[in-house]
Amino acid sequence: MTPEQFRQHGYQVIDWLADYIENVEEYPVLSRVRPGAIRSRLPDAAPDVGEPFELVLRDLDQIILPGITHWQSPGFFAYFPSNASPASILGDLVSSGLGVQGMLWSTSPACTELEMHVLDWLVDLMGLPAAFKSDGLGGGVIQDTASSSTLSTIVAARARTEKGGRRREKGENGKRNAKSASRDSELVAYASREAHSSVEKGIRIAGIPRENLRLVDVDRELAMDADALARVMTDDVDAGRVPFFVCATIGTTGTTAIDPVRRIGELAREHGAWFHVDAAYAGSAAVCPELRWTHDGVELADSYTFNPHKWLLTNFDCNALYVQDRTSLIDAFSITPEYLRNAASETGDVIDYRDWHVQLGRRFRALKLWFVLRHYGAEGLRAHIRKDVELAQYFAGLVAASDDYELAAPATFGLVCFRHVEGDDTTRAVMDRINDSGRAYLTHTVVDGRVGLRLAIGGVRTERRHVDEVWDLMGSGLDSCIEPEDD
Amino acid sequence: MTPEQFRQHGYQVIDWLADYIENVEEYPVLSRVRPGAIRSRLPDAAPDVGEPFELVLRDLDQIILPGITHWQSPGFFAYFPSNASPASILGDLVSSGLGVQGMLWSTSPACTELEMHVLDWLVDLMGLPAAFKSDGLGGGVIQDTASSSTLSTIVAARARTEKGGRRREKGENGKRNAKSASRDSELVAYASREAHSSVEKGIRIAGIPRENLRLVDVDRELAMDADALARVMTDDVDAGRVPFFVCATIGTTGTTAIDPVRRIGELAREHGAWFHVDAAYAGSAAVCPELRWTHDGVELADSYTFNPHKWLLTNFDCNALYVQDRTSLIDAFSITPEYLRNAASETGDVIDYRDWHVQLGRRFRALKLWFVLRHYGAEGLRAHIRKDVELAQYFAGLVAASDDYELAAPATFGLVCFRHVEGDDTTRAVMDRINDSGRAYLTHTVVDGRVGLRLAIGGVRTERRHVDEVWDLMGSGLDSCIEPEDD
Repeated sequence: MTPEQFRQHGYQVIDWLADYIENVEEYPVLSRVRPGAIRSRLPDAAPDVGEPFELVLRDLDQIILPGITHWQSPGFFAYFPSNASPASILGDLVSSGLGVQGMLWSTSPACTELEMHVLDWLVDLMGLPAAFKSDGLGGGVIQDTASSSTLSTIVAARARTEKGGRRREKGENGKRNAKSASRDSELVAYASREAHSSVEKGIRIAGIPRENLRLVDVDRELAMDADALARVMTDDVDAGRVPFFVCATIGTTGTTAIDPVRRIGELAREHGAWFHVDAAYAGSAAVCPELRWTHDGVELADSYTFNPHKWLLTNFDCNALYVQDRTSLIDAFSITPEYLRNAASETGDVIDYRDWHVQLGRRFRALKLWFVLRHYGAEGLRAHIRKDVELAQYFAGLVAASDDYELAAPATFGLVCFRHVEGDDTTRAVMDRINDSGRAYLTHTVVDGRVGLRLAIGGVRTERRHVDEVWDLMGSGLDSCIEPEDD
Repeated sequence: MTPEQFRQHGYQVIDWLADYIENVEEYPVLSRVRPGAIRSRLPDAAPDVGEPFELVLRDLDQIILPGITHWQSPGFFAYFPSNASPASILGDLVSSGLGVQGMLWSTSPACTELEMHVLDWLVDLMGLPAAFKSDGLGGGVIQDTASSSTLSTIVAARARTEKGGRRREKGENGKRNAKSASRDSELVAYASREAHSSVEKGIRIAGIPRENLRLVDVDRELAMDADALARVMTDDVDAGRVPFFVCATIGTTGTTAIDPVRRIGELAREHGAWFHVDAAYAGSAAVCPELRWTHDGVELADSYTFNPHKWLLTNFDCNALYVQDRTSLIDAFSITPEYLRNAASETGDVIDYRDWHVQLGRRFRALKLWFVLRHYGAEGLRAHIRKDVELAQYFAGLVAASDDYELAAPATFGLVCFRHVEGDDTTRAVMDRINDSGRAYLTHTVVDGRVGLRLAIGGVRTERRHVDEVWDLMGSGLDSCIEPEDD
């Protein structure tokens, strides 16, 4: 494909996407295909000879599109938003085209420096602790997902704990391997029962025994019970175990519950454990000063993670991880083979982000964040968050005033959790009817043993009329609710 | 940004990229900026109010571009290629615009099914074992990088070993935690000294003690010495340890050495260890039948990974991981909270790729691979690989025939490792001169204790004249070689 052909086909794809953005509301939000339906329409083998670009675009429409669940639809309320704003799509396009690797500063200095810079911008924009900025000992890094970030902090926490020598050493008589492995044997991690599954997954990947992860009880609002945390930590210490990692969540996935960050942080510090704050979804809310109360105590955190790719109008993948002490990450991850040695790195004047995460290769993801920050400006980002919170408040008000429905959890951000008063069967039937309508897509969770529906408001193009449409679907003709389908 | 504005700005970005692709040869390949230079030109804070799109594009040219090391330049030979072919850029653009999450089949069926399908296509196209296809017990998955894939297989190998109960249990009298941790204490992993650093990194992340990773000696061609592997495995077993993971490399990063895959696989099987084959770079060569001898024995592998984002014309990130038994991955990674439960998954009729890797969220990366496979066809892919291998043979021939230079390792694929006969200082001076010229960019490695330069041929637009230019830079005016700079 020559540059001129690229220009021509590029226009075609841009046109295709502009039309898609304009018409996305017309598609059923949740794809209606059955398992295997897409594959059955694809040929058994790759073509021997290259095909015209127009054929690919034709199949994109005819084969792929029916199998898409439309995350960018204004009627998509199923999961936290995964916003592909037009500005971020274009920033990502530049990143794809430049095709640079930011594993080392030297392999594209702008990739590293723009990343450091826009992440510092966000610290100020969100009122986060200055210690997270890269001009001191801390710094931010873009990772793909909060799952990866949380794993990174678990690994860094373990390395710091082992380095600090705070764990109880076994006698020197033991076998060498047994002794080495005992490094992990006494380490204990803590999160709430409502914490994201990535904490358990990260603990498992890191090789920490599952029984050394404590999922602490929650209070009535599904926030971690700090008193329960204090008790279990004390019990562990009394038993000779070493608390090494504590995770608090601001905005849990199930219901956006807010853990008592300050108290949890104080307990973590008291026991010398790494304190990680997972604000994957709700962190973006901190661009609004009136929502920063949700972040009280975050200055106690060793690490903090949130996803601009969720609620901050930046397309997936773009997770931001901040640490107060960047050497803790670098110590945990740095391995330098000969082919990665270079003058800039050896002087220590630059940051090499490959030492901040699992991956070596990394794309220029700061570009799309930069496009978003400049296109929207601070005011535009705040306006987006405020619109979503207002819509959530509006919908929560409808639910609260209704005889048929009730709130299942407080609605602080853009998520409203609610249920039908008649019980789980009716609640599920309502969900199925909404999803089957094609006009909207919701998911469920379980709160206090009862099914609750999650209306996650946050789409770029979601307006009050889309929320009203869900409300209408909830209100009319409940008698005709169909049974859940078996696929 | 309205759809119409997106169309307009989208054309601008496409034009910018078309011009970039056309002119990339004109830029100095290795960026010449000093540390901090890019940041010093960026404002201290994000803008309060959104800015016109044209200003962002202006700063892209004026501030960002000087800090880019041009991986897409035909003079880029420093690392294995990271090809952003025009077709893949456009496939990636569609993925950015659709903005779907493929964590579950149900969250966009086409995302999962196209991924399964094109990865099956590649099995046939590359002559890989049919057991890697998803119509049986195996299957492929797209991950971001081979580092992540290798970590995934380490975690799966450990889980399988523990599940299989083959490890030696400690007495039941030990403390509960100590006993649990002992699960890892006897596990041993193996790779060659020339294996990629991601093996050591993955072992570290997984919490396996470093002393339980054996970096086995290599032969004169820098391939793993299988006899040495046999000895060290036997020693470990005799000492009561359990070999759980063996990694062979097809095409090492330093010199593209090829480990004796079949013998290593037989040893791994004999000891019941997971056998992983890392063909991150060289795997793409298997699209050419005449290069499949490099993959002899790969049917013994439990897992196999290669990067279409390296040599198969697909832009970063796109790694393919294949396993013979997909339940081994799923067992290791599956955790299902309530909000991810859904009818399609419960039936077991579908694949949910979130259980195949570290991350939960995942973008629709199969699209760009599909665009590439259809645009180039099998013939186009083979032609690309053959062009690069021929250019490497041509350059290796120049080196071999020269009085001043010699090959440092065999050139089987697109990489040529060579050095100046006068010794390391001259070899380094040659590298610096080439890199300072702005016309090309090379890196170095160490072979047999001596510095070797790496000319990695594989760019989309790299032609013989670009290789000739490197040769010219190597031959003329060596007296004026400058000293390495200190940044």
